[in-house]
Amino acid sequence: MALVNEHFLKLQNNYLFADISKKVDAFKAAHPRDKIIRLGIGDVTQPLPEAVRTAMHRAVDEMGDRDTFRGYGPYQGYPFLIDAIIGNDFAPRGIAIEPDEVFISDGAKCDTGNIGDILGCANSIGVTDPVYPVYIDTNVMAGRAGNFEAGRWNGIEYISCTAENNFIPALPSRKVDILYLCYPNNPTGTTLSRDELKKWVDYALENDVLIMYDAAYEAYIQDADVPHSIYEIEGAKKVAIEFRSFSKTAGFTGVRCGYNIVPKELNGSTLEGCSVSLNTLWGRRFTTKFNGTSYITQRGAEAVYSPEGKQEVKALIDYYMTNAAIMRRGLIECGFDVYGGENAPYIWLKTPGGMSSWEFFEKLLNEAKLVGTPGVGFGPSGEGYLRLTAFGDRNETLEAVERLSVL
Amino acid sequence: MALVNEHFLKLQNNYLFADISKKVDAFKAAHPRDKIIRLGIGDVTQPLPEAVRTAMHRAVDEMGDRDTFRGYGPYQGYPFLIDAIIGNDFAPRGIAIEPDEVFISDGAKCDTGNIGDILGCANSIGVTDPVYPVYIDTNVMAGRAGNFEAGRWNGIEYISCTAENNFIPALPSRKVDILYLCYPNNPTGTTLSRDELKKWVDYALENDVLIMYDAAYEAYIQDADVPHSIYEIEGAKKVAIEFRSFSKTAGFTGVRCGYNIVPKELNGSTLEGCSVSLNTLWGRRFTTKFNGTSYITQRGAEAVYSPEGKQEVKALIDYYMTNAAIMRRGLIECGFDVYGGENAPYIWLKTPGGMSSWEFFEKLLNEAKLVGTPGVGFGPSGEGYLRLTAFGDRNETLEAVERLSVL
Repeated sequence: MALVNEHFLKLQNNYLFADISKKVDAFKAAHPRDKIIRLGIGDVTQPLPEAVRTAMHRAVDEMGDRDTFRGYGPYQGYPFLIDAIIGNDFAPRGIAIEPDEVFISDGAKCDTGNIGDILGCANSIGVTDPVYPVYIDTNVMAGRAGNFEAGRWNGIEYISCTAENNFIPALPSRKVDILYLCYPNNPTGTTLSRDELKKWVDYALENDVLIMYDAAYEAYIQDADVPHSIYEIEGAKKVAIEFRSFSKTAGFTGVRCGYNIVPKELNGSTLEGCSVSLNTLWGRRFTTKFNGTSYITQRGAEAVYSPEGKQEVKALIDYYMTNAAIMRRGLIECGFDVYGGENAPYIWLKTPGGMSSWEFFEKLLNEAKLVGTPGVGFGPSGEGYLRLTAFGDRNETLEAVERLSVL
Repeated sequence: MALVNEHFLKLQNNYLFADISKKVDAFKAAHPRDKIIRLGIGDVTQPLPEAVRTAMHRAVDEMGDRDTFRGYGPYQGYPFLIDAIIGNDFAPRGIAIEPDEVFISDGAKCDTGNIGDILGCANSIGVTDPVYPVYIDTNVMAGRAGNFEAGRWNGIEYISCTAENNFIPALPSRKVDILYLCYPNNPTGTTLSRDELKKWVDYALENDVLIMYDAAYEAYIQDADVPHSIYEIEGAKKVAIEFRSFSKTAGFTGVRCGYNIVPKELNGSTLEGCSVSLNTLWGRRFTTKFNGTSYITQRGAEAVYSPEGKQEVKALIDYYMTNAAIMRRGLIECGFDVYGGENAPYIWLKTPGGMSSWEFFEKLLNEAKLVGTPGVGFGPSGEGYLRLTAFGDRNETLEAVERLSVL
């Protein structure tokens, strides 16, 4: 019989969001008339921008004419989108990216998982804690996480980020080969200043660490001192892969498009110490296990960079960040300790009175009919916190704050 | 420095289609006025069906209204598409498939590569030869192929399919754990009858072999005796995963949608001999490394099963199969030995006079300005053959035959 990848069997059986669903379903069954407000999963709620829809309509029409029909596209993506990305997301910040360093995909989640294909199984892994579960789970699947003991994987270095250290991760205490950084951070909604990010790039340069930099939420940055790209830091192209997404920027969670940058200066190593270009390996993975992102989707993503698209995206970000401000203000007025929500669409809430994450989750669900995400679901340092998202509808967000205030 | 997956370094540097491109570009540079006809790459040329476009327009509009906007969808795909697949591709053939056995993806190429994630590295692999290169390359990347020696991977069992055995593969001479079968076959365009496929299912049942059944071209089947799905054979749900695609059926090569069936009866094994459900593992891979296929794309795929969609798809298949018939007849009249093209959009041509695949490729390019694919690019048993596709434009196909006739 075919042998399975036994690393999969180490994965925890229950997935965070599945557990939450079960509890919410049970509550609904018991209280069918109650209106539940869901601020748990980080999914957007507002419509896809008109500029994007117009571009997609046009692309669909093009597919109906044999002269403009497009079959297989370039594996790494169409030049029209790659050029728009470079010209808008990087060039204005003084970052020089070459077209063959950009890889268009069907989303940052897929990318952060698939990138593991080109890396050896023996690499040691570091994550900031709490953490987006995909970084952990995909490394478990690849056999890089070791075993799960006392709430953590013994092959993974957890770098704690809590109110105690102002959510600024300390440099790792043991050697890691690959380090995941997500800023603005999911789930805490916190950011790193330029100086703090520089500390990490310098550390990676000195210690030969590969940084996986997830910038899926960069569009939410408001402060001038918070870098949008890790490549704003000198030397980062030698140490970092950056992941970007149109999901939270332009409402693409159901449309599926993201991209990543793998600089040509970036190398990995063989066991014998020979340098190998990660750009070349990743390119090979793209051509062998992928067939490009939908032409129609790529035309939609291109429109995000049009003047109309930019204006609409800004309005979307403003909408969600107003939600975040409403929640922050309301929660602070209620006496909660609140983090994030200023440069990110996530609010990270300290549970009151020393409650555990799950206790507070249950209290919110039962008493306020409000669904958040228990912080401990994101890792051990998330215990005692709860995540709320700003991606809800405005009226529901206002009502959620109202409900919290009378808790 | 992060260690790379060194199996990637074993891959041959030159990719078949890249080599062909280089040669064609060189010819064009030397003969800028010559009109080249490309019947090499298996990409479709005819427009996307109107039913599909109409459905996609509607879905784009839905995304513009907050009441009908869709964010993250179900990981395995929307029920509307899963139900359409089961109700049209399987139920009418007496095959019972449950909704959670269907996984909607962004294409069969991705699926045949990604499925390897859930399987152990120590499995032995069998392929029919010649073979779609993705099966080989993805196993090389995963470390299951061994080393490349004398034109073949020593960890892979090549099961020869040539005119000598009428393109009917013999049962493997050494034990394989995983066997790739693609029928109708790419590249030879040949098929297996129901009895022949039964022989393979029975062999897999007796020997605990996992069959990866790639049925991407099933829509081209004309003969009643050729099975469309491996699950038409009794017992196949215990041994086979089936891959399907909308690419060649409905012109989705640039739109990206496929699906696969992982039956719940299908198990893999741990090293210690415990059975593990592959459906569960694959589901876990989907939730962890994928975020669903575009809603808009899935609505387009659903329309393939509407009455109008079915009619349009039939017209597309008829168009390409008429091309195949034109090529077959023309080539036979010219005295070539021709295979395939009767239940598949590929013609497999024996090179005349004992020429090698690449010699014949060069002759066709230089003397007929015609691009085919050298058979040896698909594996050692492809030497002495050349593949032509029926996916071209009608007039170009007619002209190609004309050019071949005066060669």
